[in-house]
Amino acid sequence: MNLLSASLLSLSLGTAAMAQETTSAALPSGSVSTLSSADIQAVSPALARYGKEDIRRLWDRPQLSRRDRSLVTASILIARSQTTDLAHHLNVALDSGVSPGELSEAVTHLAFYAGWPNAMAAVAVAKDVFTARGVDPSELPEASPELRAIDEEAERTRRASVERLLGTASPGLDQFTTDPLFADVWLRPGLTPRDRSLVTITSLMANGQVAQLAGHLDRALDNGLTKEETGEVVTQIAFYAGWPNAFSAGPVVKDVIENRPN
Amino acid sequence: MNLLSASLLSLSLGTAAMAQETTSAALPSGSVSTLSSADIQAVSPALARYGKEDIRRLWDRPQLSRRDRSLVTASILIARSQTTDLAHHLNVALDSGVSPGELSEAVTHLAFYAGWPNAMAAVAVAKDVFTARGVDPSELPEASPELRAIDEEAERTRRASVERLLGTASPGLDQFTTDPLFADVWLRPGLTPRDRSLVTITSLMANGQVAQLAGHLDRALDNGLTKEETGEVVTQIAFYAGWPNAFSAGPVVKDVIENRPN
Amino acid sequence: MNLLSASLLSLSLGTAAMAQETTSAALPSGSVSTLSSADIQAVSPALARYGKEDIRRLWDRPQLSRRDRSLVTASILIARSQTTDLAHHLNVALDSGVSPGELSEAVTHLAFYAGWPNAMAAVAVAKDVFTARGVDPSELPEASPELRAIDEEAERTRRASVERLLGTASPGLDQFTTDPLFADVWLRPGLTPRDRSLVTITSLMANGQVAQLAGHLDRALDNGLTKEETGEVVTQIAFYAGWPNAFSAGPVVKDVIENRPN
Repeated sequence: MNLLSASLLSLSLGTAAMAQETTSAALPSGSVSTLSSADIQAVSPALARYGKEDIRRLWDRPQLSRRDRSLVTASILIARSQTTDLAHHLNVALDSGVSPGELSEAVTHLAFYAGWPNAMAAVAVAKDVFTARGVDPSELPEASPELRAIDEEAERTRRASVERLLGTASPGLDQFTTDPLFADVWLRPGLTPRDRSLVTITSLMANGQVAQLAGHLDRALDNGLTKEETGEVVTQIAFYAGWPNAFSAGPVVKDVIENRPN
Repeated sequence: MNLLSASLLSLSLGTAAMAQETTSAALPSGSVSTLSSADIQAVSPALARYGKEDIRRLWDRPQLSRRDRSLVTASILIARSQTTDLAHHLNVALDSGVSPGELSEAVTHLAFYAGWPNAMAAVAVAKDVFTARGVDPSELPEASPELRAIDEEAERTRRASVERLLGTASPGLDQFTTDPLFADVWLRPGLTPRDRSLVTITSLMANGQVAQLAGHLDRALDNGLTKEETGEVVTQIAFYAGWPNAFSAGPVVKDVIENRPN
Repeated sequence: MNLLSASLLSLSLGTAAMAQETTSAALPSGSVSTLSSADIQAVSPALARYGKEDIRRLWDRPQLSRRDRSLVTASILIARSQTTDLAHHLNVALDSGVSPGELSEAVTHLAFYAGWPNAMAAVAVAKDVFTARGVDPSELPEASPELRAIDEEAERTRRASVERLLGTASPGLDQFTTDPLFADVWLRPGLTPRDRSLVTITSLMANGQVAQLAGHLDRALDNGLTKEETGEVVTQIAFYAGWPNAFSAGPVVKDVIENRPN
């Protein structure tokens, strides 16, 4: 088997186990984009170098598992409706230990946090990726599974906060936020609350929506994301959603982290 | 005639009269996207269910007419340059009582509020939709129609506000804001001031641009949009531009509504 | 040679010399978009008129050279991932005196300020533009050129500011901001610091990222951009990224300009 085949094989057969070795294998050669390294070089040799050196250095960092990093990156692209490299990064995610069911739930979750049209654009791409990889419909979460129990106290706090923000200005938003968003979507078992929080803060940071960020960071830490992981999501945001979005999110992360008991 | 044909027929022949029955017919089956329900199910059965249940529930709400809702939705897609479902929603708008001339003016208006490239992307799609439906050039507003009279007092207030914001920092922006934006675009008769306001606040909310929102909400209410309709635009924003943009807009709507006399 | 051929020829053979005549020739007829004027008219005769009158008036303004204006416009499209007219505006830039090497560096720079996926989408388009124009690889900046000397004092100030913003919340962001962003990208000789600043403030304004704008405006003025040019970038933003983004940027420009010694 030649090197290219081996590389393609490792890309398509990568397993969760491999993904756990976060400090060993970097992204396979040439896999910083759907575009080949030669194509990137034809416009910017510098960019090809940053791809090989810095983006690889990024993915090798142990502060966030490669599995989480791939879920974050796919979520950034969906949240920003950038489809050029979406098929590529859905494959990277599936090769890094994110299951088809989890990706399905991430798309569903982002329909609410980034918008229905973003989800439709993602569906158009994911459909072909799933078909190409032979994902069976039985691997996808059912439409109406048994839901997790709701945290009544957190829900009371949330509703009080919504009432403070909206008053009676938008009864429709109030109602749909309760159901389906918090009484259904967030309780679906196909993605852990910790991963839902990861996808949510990623979407907020990716679109520079810092107004809602502090609340969701607190929820994320409650749901089991560590402070170190949270800070590293900001690093991933810098590369895949641009430095300014990372620097808008960073100070909010700093405040939330510093104000929590250890 | 089988069910499918009937459904397609109702999609293509829908009339303004039908659109007025805001509480009766929901979106035709399968019409939550250009994508088929089967395609959505192939990635997320849950998303297909939310489309059938919650998005239908959204469009059935009486707080905003289906005609307005379709104009808002098309405007969201244009303002965010999301073209996957744009042809679909231009057709929904035309089936819901928005005239080709009004859609033409909405694209023009959004060239200014969302950007010239957004309008070009919309033109590329709308051109084919208009052709497929046999829209005659005579149905489009002329390039230089007789304009509505300008409201001199509102214009003085607006210019004073621009001077306060910009000083002499950008004479070009100052000048083009006066003409063509307020001395020409806003005065074109092909779209009512109320609908121009509806498109404008939609564009601002869809892109999280809350800095200019309060001023345009006041203008929208002056132009005849009701408080209830304004709050319901926020609900539509939640589904089609994501919950965070709705929750950034909601508190601004609350403040503006509460500070107006009834 | 008929008029159409002449127009295409002037578009493809335009030279830097021509570009310098900023107050004479406007954009060639029909060149406000990849779309033809007839296509625009088929949806909005008004838009076609604004293209012919106001966009031409914009490009004719002497406050910003046509070369700078074309670099700004291409940067807006890349920063917002709007590719419909990107090939068109890369050609306008190359016809207006921006060299292929400078465009290459602008794409690289925007990979950091707008995001890696934006750069990949731009590469996919620029690659074909470069091929069609016979750009030779030797015209592109090398991957690792000799870098400009760093300004140690400015760098100390920058690092102190980053430490204040992030604390220890995101060590990864801190590290990659130093290297490669400020110790490598900003020091590459293929684009002047003044032009890097021009591309940076354009990207920030185009995406409504005002939080980082004041600092980069100060740097831009330090790097040789004039106050008048800075204010005129805001005008270009209005047309190509929408009025709201211009009106979010304008007051920040006003403050920075007023607080600088002449």
